[in-house]
Amino acid sequence: MSAPLANDAFLRACRRQPTDFTPVWLMRQAGRYLPEYCATRAKAGSFMGLATNVDFATEVTLQPLERYALDAAILFSDILTVPDAMGLGLSFAQGEGPRFAHPVRDEADVARLAVPDLDRLRYVFDAVTSIRQALNGRVPLIGFSGSPWTLACYMVEGGGSDDYRLVKTMLYARPDLMHRILEVNADAVAAYLNAQIDAGAQAVMIFDSWGGVLADGAFQRFSLAYTKRVLAQLKREHDGEPVPQIVFTKGGGLWLEAMADARPDVLGVDWTVNLGQARARVGDRVALQGNLDPCVLFAPPEKIRAEVTAALESFGRPARADGGVDGHVFNLGHGISQFTPPEHVAVLVDTVHEVSRRLRAG
Amino acid sequence: MSAPLANDAFLRACRRQPTDFTPVWLMRQAGRYLPEYCATRAKAGSFMGLATNVDFATEVTLQPLERYALDAAILFSDILTVPDAMGLGLSFAQGEGPRFAHPVRDEADVARLAVPDLDRLRYVFDAVTSIRQALNGRVPLIGFSGSPWTLACYMVEGGGSDDYRLVKTMLYARPDLMHRILEVNADAVAAYLNAQIDAGAQAVMIFDSWGGVLADGAFQRFSLAYTKRVLAQLKREHDGEPVPQIVFTKGGGLWLEAMADARPDVLGVDWTVNLGQARARVGDRVALQGNLDPCVLFAPPEKIRAEVTAALESFGRPARADGGVDGHVFNLGHGISQFTPPEHVAVLVDTVHEVSRRLRAG
Repeated sequence: MSAPLANDAFLRACRRQPTDFTPVWLMRQAGRYLPEYCATRAKAGSFMGLATNVDFATEVTLQPLERYALDAAILFSDILTVPDAMGLGLSFAQGEGPRFAHPVRDEADVARLAVPDLDRLRYVFDAVTSIRQALNGRVPLIGFSGSPWTLACYMVEGGGSDDYRLVKTMLYARPDLMHRILEVNADAVAAYLNAQIDAGAQAVMIFDSWGGVLADGAFQRFSLAYTKRVLAQLKREHDGEPVPQIVFTKGGGLWLEAMADARPDVLGVDWTVNLGQARARVGDRVALQGNLDPCVLFAPPEKIRAEVTAALESFGRPARADGGVDGHVFNLGHGISQFTPPEHVAVLVDTVHEVSRRLRAG
Repeated sequence: MSAPLANDAFLRACRRQPTDFTPVWLMRQAGRYLPEYCATRAKAGSFMGLATNVDFATEVTLQPLERYALDAAILFSDILTVPDAMGLGLSFAQGEGPRFAHPVRDEADVARLAVPDLDRLRYVFDAVTSIRQALNGRVPLIGFSGSPWTLACYMVEGGGSDDYRLVKTMLYARPDLMHRILEVNADAVAAYLNAQIDAGAQAVMIFDSWGGVLADGAFQRFSLAYTKRVLAQLKREHDGEPVPQIVFTKGGGLWLEAMADARPDVLGVDWTVNLGQARARVGDRVALQGNLDPCVLFAPPEKIRAEVTAALESFGRPARADGGVDGHVFNLGHGISQFTPPEHVAVLVDTVHEVSRRLRAG
């Protein structure tokens, strides 16, 4: 039996229900900008050493909540755990991005792919359960995964890429192979997120980090179609509580209508999107999450306050009977930078709460 | 006295006048995917050795025209010649991007900036004149520059960047310094493009390669405002002929209306944009240039033909009395990749011509 939630503002905003203030959390909020995170990571020895150890994962997930009045926690993990469990061999070299030892390049590689045994991801579900216990009802816990397309990018490229040449070559030259990878990924991601929900995740987020590198048309066929396939398989509630679904496509601002039609509860948007315009485009179909440029956090406090206020007002500006300030989860438009001064994050979080309360009052 | 133009389809399309076919050229069409380019570059010793030598620059500019039925030539140069002429010390290390020896980081650096003596860019104007002579009226010649904001990105970062942390920190923390850099850049770019026009450039293009990394609001204030400042200073005709202006913001698809309001003749768009939707948004204010994903060229010929046809139809689909196929300059949505098979480029160019003639006939 879990503790009742002391702060449900995030879950309410996801469902577009009124809240006293705009809830806020930050992508990658447990990360290298925090000295206490770096200390725990040093103890763990490696990124995967950190992510696969339940105690460490619990510890770093809660670290930002000790410093800031954040309204949600997000599982500490990586978007690439699923292809790792497929046997592709994930590693993180010092100072570099993720690498797969066995990238998926040809027909034989694709034929070998299958939804992994979820037991290989047990460490993730155990971390979810442990974090829920540690949170003890303080704020809700978000689970997550990479999107089928974003996983495919890393699986085919074998790591990060400047031009996505290998994965796009497969997409254009052998769409049959690409669709097969994406089918397997979608079913694997759905099973993975459902297991996170069973373990205690109170909302789930699909990170389509590389959807925005696709051409119009290709995005709909190779990214959004498989995000929909995931959403269709997800449990909509657990323990009698609805489990909101968040979809975030970096660089996906041109496709908001199509993404809203997929009917997640929340669409994450990056900083190129005007929140007021986005809201006019998606209407009351979805809530919005975002979207401050993480680089704003390099500016002095008074500038941070001005930019946060502008973002809140941008969302709230259209005239609505209820004041028009609900259905917004404040966040950055991308993960927080490792170079962020930690004290600036407090300015952001506190400003979101203060200004959004004032907007509701006024 | 220049030779009369044998093929004015590109210039007509820029002005949204009817053409018998859709004209096509490719960003970075004189580049490393061509073995003959690599041979000339090896003779020149370095990228800047190539760009600053009038004979070499003329030779490589014309190389793709020998292979393909392209409808325009573009000056072989770099977008960063202007800050180099300001004294920032441009170099290209082997296998890396551009570097500036003297980046612009603080108030004193900014105070030193000034519109450079155009004599330091004489090699560019000489190349324009030489290329015009070598073209002898075959197709028009496009001149170009980086946009004020894109130049500022490189000037402050000192080279390429993953996160634009330094330039965005200056933007958010010291907007006064950023505006000063952008003013100088805009006036320098305008003078530079006007000198290219005087030397014989028949159209000019402003590459806002990094406009798309800016937040909504910041884009309008720090990129578009200074592109407008350039456009306002440009000569609209030369030798009695209008000189079309092309503005291309990579990742700028959300801001097409605002860019069309700046009234260049042509807006370049990348592959995330749906051409038919873009056309509905900008109306008859501007022509459009783009927008095939360069990775399509890694696919086999039949797939290239299908994607090119889809792009042409996407632009031409809306019902119009005149068939709705004018005002489109076919291009990629970004520079051609060095890994492109040269024979695939012929497939693209020939398909654009064949299919667009058929669309006009049907």
